[in-house]
Amino acid sequence: MNRKSFAIVCAVAASLVHMPQAASQQVTEDFRSLSSNQYGEQYPMVNSQRIVRGRILAPAAHEVFLQINGINYPMTKDADGYWMGQSDPLDEGNHYYGLVIDGANVPDPASLFLYGSGAERTQLEIPAQDEYKYALRDVPHGQIREIYFHSNTTGAQRHIFVYTPPQYDDDVNVRYPVLYLQHGYTENETGWSRQGRCGFIMDNLLADGKCLPFIIVMENGEISHPAQGPQANFGSLMSAANELFPKILTQDVIPYIDSHFRTIPDKAHRALAGLSMGGMQTRHISLNYPGYFSQIGIFSGGTISVQDINSNPEFKKENTLTFISYGSREVENPRGQSPKETVQAIREQGINAYYYESPQTAHEWQTWRRSLYEFAPLLFR
Amino acid sequence: MNRKSFAIVCAVAASLVHMPQAASQQVTEDFRSLSSNQYGEQYPMVNSQRIVRGRILAPAAHEVFLQINGINYPMTKDADGYWMGQSDPLDEGNHYYGLVIDGANVPDPASLFLYGSGAERTQLEIPAQDEYKYALRDVPHGQIREIYFHSNTTGAQRHIFVYTPPQYDDDVNVRYPVLYLQHGYTENETGWSRQGRCGFIMDNLLADGKCLPFIIVMENGEISHPAQGPQANFGSLMSAANELFPKILTQDVIPYIDSHFRTIPDKAHRALAGLSMGGMQTRHISLNYPGYFSQIGIFSGGTISVQDINSNPEFKKENTLTFISYGSREVENPRGQSPKETVQAIREQGINAYYYESPQTAHEWQTWRRSLYEFAPLLFR
Repeated sequence: MNRKSFAIVCAVAASLVHMPQAASQQVTEDFRSLSSNQYGEQYPMVNSQRIVRGRILAPAAHEVFLQINGINYPMTKDADGYWMGQSDPLDEGNHYYGLVIDGANVPDPASLFLYGSGAERTQLEIPAQDEYKYALRDVPHGQIREIYFHSNTTGAQRHIFVYTPPQYDDDVNVRYPVLYLQHGYTENETGWSRQGRCGFIMDNLLADGKCLPFIIVMENGEISHPAQGPQANFGSLMSAANELFPKILTQDVIPYIDSHFRTIPDKAHRALAGLSMGGMQTRHISLNYPGYFSQIGIFSGGTISVQDINSNPEFKKENTLTFISYGSREVENPRGQSPKETVQAIREQGINAYYYESPQTAHEWQTWRRSLYEFAPLLFR
Repeated sequence: MNRKSFAIVCAVAASLVHMPQAASQQVTEDFRSLSSNQYGEQYPMVNSQRIVRGRILAPAAHEVFLQINGINYPMTKDADGYWMGQSDPLDEGNHYYGLVIDGANVPDPASLFLYGSGAERTQLEIPAQDEYKYALRDVPHGQIREIYFHSNTTGAQRHIFVYTPPQYDDDVNVRYPVLYLQHGYTENETGWSRQGRCGFIMDNLLADGKCLPFIIVMENGEISHPAQGPQANFGSLMSAANELFPKILTQDVIPYIDSHFRTIPDKAHRALAGLSMGGMQTRHISLNYPGYFSQIGIFSGGTISVQDINSNPEFKKENTLTFISYGSREVENPRGQSPKETVQAIREQGINAYYYESPQTAHEWQTWRRSLYEFAPLLFR
């Protein structure tokens, strides 16, 4: 599916007006402002049932919708020209979101922005039972470093983010392992530190003594063949991913990181993980580019099968950690072997494999925050 | 003016519909997409006269405006439901921008976001004759580091950005001077690295051998008295700025930076600068908190007068650089002594003072980018 058809599918889905279940259920009036609101904004609000209530001043508009995860929830206008509307109960965690005002799809000016689904757009951060995992706590914090550097492969500058652990600058003689961590389709290098909260997750795990310190590198893995331009479709992206992305990663990014950070520059101390498309890239690179990564994580992006390891003796011999995860809603009706069973099967073949399932979440960031939280403590042991 | 009245003034200004001069002049049809557009978006576009043409799909809307710097430019609808409109010629540089759709003020989904005028909002990056100063070039790049740390003064986490020069990690025995660089009213700690492009400005100056390497620290100086909450007005902000901000800066931020970065931790190697409100803070702190900063920059935020230095002997004795700047449109009709004359007067009193005027710009980021570009080469000589 290319970007344009993806957008059309979204628009068609969005045109289905949804009568919220909330109308037919008792709504608990304990609404409070979201942490993803702009400074000083009261709306959007959320209640303990995770129903979102939005508001926009549009005195001359005729039809306005709240649009959340591709569903249009109707809004109604009051005497002062404010439109109000509310959603069905949402999953915990981060969701993309906007408004439709007389046919125009626009961001809600009351919310903060993230890059996702191919654009910077507004978001809703729904409170979660386990938000302590990714909350900003009063603990020592690492740094998220924004870096540009020249890529010989592309002939252009690349834009990456690097997490360094809190103690990184305390002792300049200590060297660290590195996790290369990839986003999904229609996302970019900002995803893991913003939606993914990887800095806070690591700071919290380290403060609680649950994981070892390591560096995290976040690259843009959405690389199209130059001839295809920005409108490349998913197939061509994956094809480019199978050729260009491993080349950029192994010949440009890893050497840059190893020469600019105090890494332990060997396979034993280098891991690769990703979500969705980033998980597919992780799988592809770990099976086809031996010599770089000894430990891998695939979040909502496939599995490693017995057939995979039997046709890749080097993987079978040298991989020291394989972590597979999904949101529970993604694997409710598996076709054939479930990922959990696949992981069990490669464990029986001697792979140090783990399976994690995020409760009550789908193909969304809450699944991937939790996946990182479970994966990080297993790394570099 | 508090935030609410500021917003109302903007809304009133915005309600004045403006018939673009462009209608009565020859428009050159050499429009091209802006660098501030979202990935793959053709519109908004700009031509060589710096006229912006915007577009939005809003098939059921009745009245749509382009809103740029508080002026509403009418848009007209085509048969496919797209609205098009164009502005008057704009100044070079960065401008905040949005749409008004049937009375709703919303961001343009086709543009990227920045924090300014009290919210994350969309922007237009108008090409400039001198954009080489702040362009991303193929030169060694420093890092912009995002950091959270505990403030004893506020009892909460603070969020800062730190620029380290390209060579910072090459030799861990070298120590660097530090510039503390402040944003303006209704802006925050992200302004200087995003709108201000301070990282690229420094990388370019360093690559061209025009300045010495130093660290830049960017804090949020918009600190209200806790009792007043987020709706604090400008007066209370400045009052807090005069008490709380110097305390946070000198007792929390400087010690954090000096203990986590390889600084030269003395007054001779510490500078303070800011734009607008940040310039007023710089002036206040440099005159009333001796012992911290030997070099200062005030961009569009006032001057240091002969009376100031005569009533502050320590400033007169120990200040080694005073840099004052304005956009040319800000000082067209000075009341009384012009800032240029004021700077000349303190120079005659022995202050190492410089005045810079940004051509054809107002109270806007292009003035401040150019100011930093002129100021940085003078620092730490």
